Amino acid sequence: MVRLIALYSTPDDPAAFDEHYRTAHAPIVARYPGIREMHATRLAGLGDRPPSHYLMAEMVFDSRADLDAALASDAGRESGRDLRNFAQAGVTLFVADDEAMLDG
Amino acid sequence: MVRLIALYSTPDDPAAFDEHYRTAHAPIVARYPGIREMHATRLAGLGDRPPSHYLMAEMVFDSRADLDAALASDAGRESGRDLRNFAQAGVTLFVADDEAMLDG
Repeated sequence: MVRLIALYSTPDDPAAFDEHYRTAHAPIVARYPGIREMHATRLAGLGDRPPSHYLMAEMVFDSRADLDAALASDAGRESGRDLRNFAQAGVTLFVADDEAMLDG
Repeated sequence: MVRLIALYSTPDDPAAFDEHYRTAHAPIVARYPGIREMHATRLAGLGDRPPSHYLMAEMVFDSRADLDAALASDAGRESGRDLRNFAQAGVTLFVADDEAMLDG
């Protein structure tokens, strides 16, 4: 199992961000070829500190090759272009591959 | 389900980091009261970019209250102190609560 993880920085207008993510961005991601699961969770901080990021989206694939193919697909390119419509505050993308697990 | 997520910045000596994480830090975290699962995955970047962080550790609890109690426990305080022994490059902590899920 391989996860593409997107950490979104806190937007100026969280309600508008949520609305765009849910109604426009997530439906594009759902069209990624080979995607097995997707979910997005708003984040919280510890103690009284605000979280470093607003939202974590996780997209699950069977393999790194499937993940790379999804990002290179029409839906992958469309989702990349869509970031400018709602993720102006920034987004960090990385890959967590169970093959690279340090402990179990 | 609630996850405490720790994103570790890239260490100067990854092999020493891995060794300390595996043999010293993870055993402390395993003593957190109420912890249900823990795993740590080395991260990869997209394309030829290096990842923004080196390692993502995920610690699963039944509730936010259990998570907060774990961090306030002896093992929680010990794990916090242990960060200075291997996480000098930095670590970002946040909480992903399934109750705050934006989509399914």
